[in-house]
Amino acid sequence: MQALWLENNQISLREVSRPVKPGEALIKIRKAGICSTDLELVRGYYPYTGILGHEFVGEVVESPDTTWVGARVVGEINAVCGACEACLNGRPTHCENRTVLGISNRDGVFAEYTTLPLANLHRVPDSVSDEMAVFTEPLAAALEIQEQIQIKSTDRVLVVGAGRLGQLIAQTLALTGCNLSVVARHTFPKKLLTARGIRITSEEEIKPHQWDIVVEVTGSPDGFNLARKAIRPRGTLVLKSTYKGEMTVDFSSIVVDEINILGSRCGPFEPALQLLEKREVDPTVLIADEFKLGDVLKAFEKAAQPGVLKVLVENK
Amino acid sequence: MQALWLENNQISLREVSRPVKPGEALIKIRKAGICSTDLELVRGYYPYTGILGHEFVGEVVESPDTTWVGARVVGEINAVCGACEACLNGRPTHCENRTVLGISNRDGVFAEYTTLPLANLHRVPDSVSDEMAVFTEPLAAALEIQEQIQIKSTDRVLVVGAGRLGQLIAQTLALTGCNLSVVARHTFPKKLLTARGIRITSEEEIKPHQWDIVVEVTGSPDGFNLARKAIRPRGTLVLKSTYKGEMTVDFSSIVVDEINILGSRCGPFEPALQLLEKREVDPTVLIADEFKLGDVLKAFEKAAQPGVLKVLVENK
Repeated sequence: MQALWLENNQISLREVSRPVKPGEALIKIRKAGICSTDLELVRGYYPYTGILGHEFVGEVVESPDTTWVGARVVGEINAVCGACEACLNGRPTHCENRTVLGISNRDGVFAEYTTLPLANLHRVPDSVSDEMAVFTEPLAAALEIQEQIQIKSTDRVLVVGAGRLGQLIAQTLALTGCNLSVVARHTFPKKLLTARGIRITSEEEIKPHQWDIVVEVTGSPDGFNLARKAIRPRGTLVLKSTYKGEMTVDFSSIVVDEINILGSRCGPFEPALQLLEKREVDPTVLIADEFKLGDVLKAFEKAAQPGVLKVLVENK
Repeated sequence: MQALWLENNQISLREVSRPVKPGEALIKIRKAGICSTDLELVRGYYPYTGILGHEFVGEVVESPDTTWVGARVVGEINAVCGACEACLNGRPTHCENRTVLGISNRDGVFAEYTTLPLANLHRVPDSVSDEMAVFTEPLAAALEIQEQIQIKSTDRVLVVGAGRLGQLIAQTLALTGCNLSVVARHTFPKKLLTARGIRITSEEEIKPHQWDIVVEVTGSPDGFNLARKAIRPRGTLVLKSTYKGEMTVDFSSIVVDEINILGSRCGPFEPALQLLEKREVDPTVLIADEFKLGDVLKAFEKAAQPGVLKVLVENK
């Protein structure tokens, strides 16, 4: 089958054998999405060799439990052992022995087929199109913030960054009724936010220490410094991005201001699917372009362009 | 009066005029304690010019409300405006216009007298000696951790550092019944912990990612790195120290492991006084030496020696 192979910071379209994993479902990919983490992996953020990609919607074509065959599914990206301390204590996404779809020791979804354990799969409601369903994984990641901290309707919440994940975070946070603003630079992301009635603000307008919760989605030192400036004493600063290398932080000011810095990663799929089914979010507005799997290298070129939000890869 | 003056990283014993602050209580210092923050201020951690010192027990000698005159008191160190956003939202220790006793724009307590607003004062119960009461401020700082996060009896809690504040943190955390261990290096701090039935551990014994909550009290990069290694995914890493300069942190690992980094500073005085009154903690075991105010420079020399815990300064 065709697959996008990453090795030594080089991606290439290769012919590889169809995956075989006893006990797992074989899934024919319908659509896959390019995420910032994919672009960072290509840049060498983390040493990974294998088929790239972790955002997908597909169809089960083989399964140990045949009731799954033919089901249209999305899949959680962490395949877990179920036996380690993290798994036994309700933190399976932190499984010590996990493999991660297209990220760590597990071939991903920019391919004709992939495999996943049945426990990772979620059936997609009929009313949720492929274009919507392919956003389940990043939408779940956005919802993870609300799994971790309580967002009150009186909270002043600032999202720093209005890219792929920033848009989904903004859409989900807006549902809480909190006092939300988003720092956006580019015209198109601004337009998307305005269309949903989400307030946008510029870096220059941010007054120091005025925000109860700040979500940093840029992954850059500039973004972090702005978030640090914006957060009020005893506020929560959520780190929701891929950070390149080490950051320098003034810990004394973190202590003096009693700031809460909170890392945030993968989130719950079912609530994400429900939001899509109820049309309470609309991630499809992010779609900038769609390429066939044979043109996946072009898709990556496009996704790396500034201001481009979601690029999809179709397997038909 | 005699006072310990800090200016340009130099401390000197000076004759200064007795403080006069209309509306505030005039307090005759009985005992004051030397804290790591004092030593850091002398090393230039923060630019402060004035009388040093913020841990004290004293006697009110003048007061706008005469019912306070003659009262033996301890005092909260943040003098606040009562009108800013932080004050109006229940975060007075983060008052935007605060002055801080012996730390920021307010003369401190290594002197014969100091002044504080009446709102900062707490009467010391008769059964609490001066030697105990002088620890109220750092004991309150230790209790701040429990104001910020819930410590469950099933939590595995590691305290990194067994110095002045580390000892008080260990004593207060032990009261929660949690599964507590303390990383200690020196013989005497170890002995104090063992005497209270608190488990000690060495750096080498710390297995990675096994602790639900880690309290970092060393203020050093080594201490932080050990704390970071020890904390489990989704655990809380409390920063409870004065940090010199900037620290470098691998933010990607904080995101991947969804770590919660929490700064922690000043805490509640009343619970601290209650613990002292009920003899549920015993800070007096930390006292290494006591000097008269005239010998305060010798007291600072002693306090800076490795392994020395609390040095008191007496004003009689």
